[in-house]
Amino acid sequence: MESVRQTLTLEGEGKVICLKQDITAESAAENIVEAAVREFGMIDIVVNNAGIARRIEETYFNFPLEKFSEYMLDQFIQFAVAPVQLSIAAAKVMAKKYANIGYNEVGLPRDTGCIIYNLSQAALQPIRDDLLAYSAAKRAALSTMETLTGVLGQHNIRVNAIAPGYANTAGPKKFYSRFPNIRADIDKHVPLKPNFMDPSAVVPAVQYLVADNYVNGVVIEIDGGWHLRFNRYFNV
Amino acid sequence: MESVRQTLTLEGEGKVICLKQDITAESAAENIVEAAVREFGMIDIVVNNAGIARRIEETYFNFPLEKFSEYMLDQFIQFAVAPVQLSIAAAKVMAKKYANIGYNEVGLPRDTGCIIYNLSQAALQPIRDDLLAYSAAKRAALSTMETLTGVLGQHNIRVNAIAPGYANTAGPKKFYSRFPNIRADIDKHVPLKPNFMDPSAVVPAVQYLVADNYVNGVVIEIDGGWHLRFNRYFNV
Amino acid sequence: MESVRQTLTLEGEGKVICLKQDITAESAAENIVEAAVREFGMIDIVVNNAGIARRIEETYFNFPLEKFSEYMLDQFIQFAVAPVQLSIAAAKVMAKKYANIGYNEVGLPRDTGCIIYNLSQAALQPIRDDLLAYSAAKRAALSTMETLTGVLGQHNIRVNAIAPGYANTAGPKKFYSRFPNIRADIDKHVPLKPNFMDPSAVVPAVQYLVADNYVNGVVIEIDGGWHLRFNRYFNV
Amino acid sequence: MESVRQTLTLEGEGKVICLKQDITAESAAENIVEAAVREFGMIDIVVNNAGIARRIEETYFNFPLEKFSEYMLDQFIQFAVAPVQLSIAAAKVMAKKYANIGYNEVGLPRDTGCIIYNLSQAALQPIRDDLLAYSAAKRAALSTMETLTGVLGQHNIRVNAIAPGYANTAGPKKFYSRFPNIRADIDKHVPLKPNFMDPSAVVPAVQYLVADNYVNGVVIEIDGGWHLRFNRYFNV
Repeated sequence: MESVRQTLTLEGEGKVICLKQDITAESAAENIVEAAVREFGMIDIVVNNAGIARRIEETYFNFPLEKFSEYMLDQFIQFAVAPVQLSIAAAKVMAKKYANIGYNEVGLPRDTGCIIYNLSQAALQPIRDDLLAYSAAKRAALSTMETLTGVLGQHNIRVNAIAPGYANTAGPKKFYSRFPNIRADIDKHVPLKPNFMDPSAVVPAVQYLVADNYVNGVVIEIDGGWHLRFNRYFNV
Repeated sequence: MESVRQTLTLEGEGKVICLKQDITAESAAENIVEAAVREFGMIDIVVNNAGIARRIEETYFNFPLEKFSEYMLDQFIQFAVAPVQLSIAAAKVMAKKYANIGYNEVGLPRDTGCIIYNLSQAALQPIRDDLLAYSAAKRAALSTMETLTGVLGQHNIRVNAIAPGYANTAGPKKFYSRFPNIRADIDKHVPLKPNFMDPSAVVPAVQYLVADNYVNGVVIEIDGGWHLRFNRYFNV
Repeated sequence: MESVRQTLTLEGEGKVICLKQDITAESAAENIVEAAVREFGMIDIVVNNAGIARRIEETYFNFPLEKFSEYMLDQFIQFAVAPVQLSIAAAKVMAKKYANIGYNEVGLPRDTGCIIYNLSQAALQPIRDDLLAYSAAKRAALSTMETLTGVLGQHNIRVNAIAPGYANTAGPKKFYSRFPNIRADIDKHVPLKPNFMDPSAVVPAVQYLVADNYVNGVVIEIDGGWHLRFNRYFNV
Repeated sequence: MESVRQTLTLEGEGKVICLKQDITAESAAENIVEAAVREFGMIDIVVNNAGIARRIEETYFNFPLEKFSEYMLDQFIQFAVAPVQLSIAAAKVMAKKYANIGYNEVGLPRDTGCIIYNLSQAALQPIRDDLLAYSAAKRAALSTMETLTGVLGQHNIRVNAIAPGYANTAGPKKFYSRFPNIRADIDKHVPLKPNFMDPSAVVPAVQYLVADNYVNGVVIEIDGGWHLRFNRYFNV
């Protein structure tokens, strides 16, 4: 983590801090917000990004019932509960700066606080049987993101999401090399190449959501068009 | 509960058993399935109906962070985890009867096992700020219902849902008498009268979902059309 | 058509009339409504069912631009314009009976007029490149069906839809025997068997939508679960 | 139009041409594409933006049936047919540049052709009874936009949309001053202020959709969060 911090510090112009926290711990949200305020004096942007997917690679009839509970709660705490707590803890701070920041010459907010959820295609549709717990938690996260949009706008804080598709990072590469049939099904439904994207593909959407002071409550799918599940049979 | 059992027994032709279970307990699903098998020898229909909504009637900035966790987990366990466990525990039994039941003369399943989720409009949109935890859990439940549809169809078990709107039962009556402004907003968006329905309004949909052996993975909104949030200004 | 009429007359108990109309003609809606009123004195149920899909089996770059216009207008008139005209022409009659029909002992409508749209999965997602014009028209039809729901409820007329999946009728059989690859892709995503349904599979949903006096503005997918486009890799 | 051209020329660095075309004429698409190619040699970006909404400010029972046909066809040709023709005519040119443009060092497209639809909230839900024809046409346009996404990606052409909410331009101002009740209903459901936006609020989204070479098939609602139709009762 320290090496990431050094890289970011060298590449950018500002100050970078790293704080190791278990987001499933009750105190994480307040710890993160306190550290940010201590170092920077204010919070402007929150990206809810942490969390690790757990897959069920067995038939449901062979998977112990209590494991469904364990997996579902784990994913729900990571993807739905923790971001709500972090977003609200941060919003209390952000509201001080943004709630009365005023409007520019054309009547749009002069500036806004920005909360971004990194969701997933699984937030929009359950996709696959190994993702039961993950998809349910991400769909719950989408619901809370919409609720927060409705509540925090009055403080000039916007809440939006990205829903990335399939990335060509180490974890997925390993998974799809084990299951080339799953990979082949994905390949068929990405209109734009590549089928599996470099994770930097999400950067423009995040920059946009930070910069636009009126967009609110949207989900931007970043997947080359995969989410449409379109079939092209004649235009080949 | 015994009086309900007696009423149902008198009104119907079959045998009725009641079993008091805390659905948030790990053992509930298996207890329910075991009792049903012991009494009836088979399970044909499961309706995931239990659960109590918890509302947040405070501003989020005044609501303690740990309470978000408490409320969200409570609702998620009731509405998302417990139905998955009950559905799968029951499906293991149902599959024995239905998986190889065969097809009728036009090639449709001769019969099917039937799992029904009683969702809510909140599963489709978060609706209101007091329903953050409830809406998130119901949306998660919708995701799992879709996953179960995809998985259990191979055993000739169908999974569908109803999404009832606003009922004129005791709880809601009390709530909306406290908040007539909320009630007025609902009233404006129900194309068909009544605005608040008798709970028996869900019966035809449940009967239909039980009887149709091919409908699978659908959500039927039972709300007079409220879910469209349509505005009628000129046709008055 | 006369043989269909005779069959229906023999099978049922009521009177059956057949009226040959080109639904793309401006006068069709009024002709149909007038004939129905003349013979039966009232209209209770309308099913918007007519229309023939036109597919584009060429690449879009080779398909003349004016043909897009021709195909799109043809499909739009059949699936979106004609049903609006028929529904409203019929609703003017239905309103006389239903608008003030009153409520039963639990406050639900004593009876309701019923309009049903026979949509298609293509109304919910564009699905395939040969269906550009068809999907657009069906999606437009869904929009108008929702608008009519919002407007006609005040007269105790309900408007709902079914969205059937793939049927094993003569037309599709011929098409999919030409394109077994398209058929194979469909086969993979129907959780419940059969993959291609007998058209009688839509009957229970239509009967339900006619009978339930409170369901309004819903779309019931009748496709064994195909619309979820779910992938089952581990539960096999 | 000439004054707009002069303003744009002075403000920007490039060359601006204006071409007056009736987009409902069959020849418009080819005229526009030919003029662009003649002047610029290539087409990189297409924004489908033209069209005028027609509202039905009468009850449907008093509105002549043939007028539904007239209004619906008018809106469908403007919003659904014309953009398909323009997009495909332009894509034939764009494909020459983009289809084989290659990939950058992380495997993302080096550059892409970009087609943008200016939809509307009415493309996602029918909203109001005066918008029957407009909403149907915009929903059809959404369907075709998704189809084009699926088809044109192979040529490295992306197709996306914005769905602006309520703008404070001359037309709407006049309309909402006539119907302050409609305006009040909108005001209640915009989490972020202002309720009615300056039209320049769409610029960042358009710039983003032009710049991001992987986002494909998305709809970005630009409305301060109105599309969620959220109710805030307790966080006030």
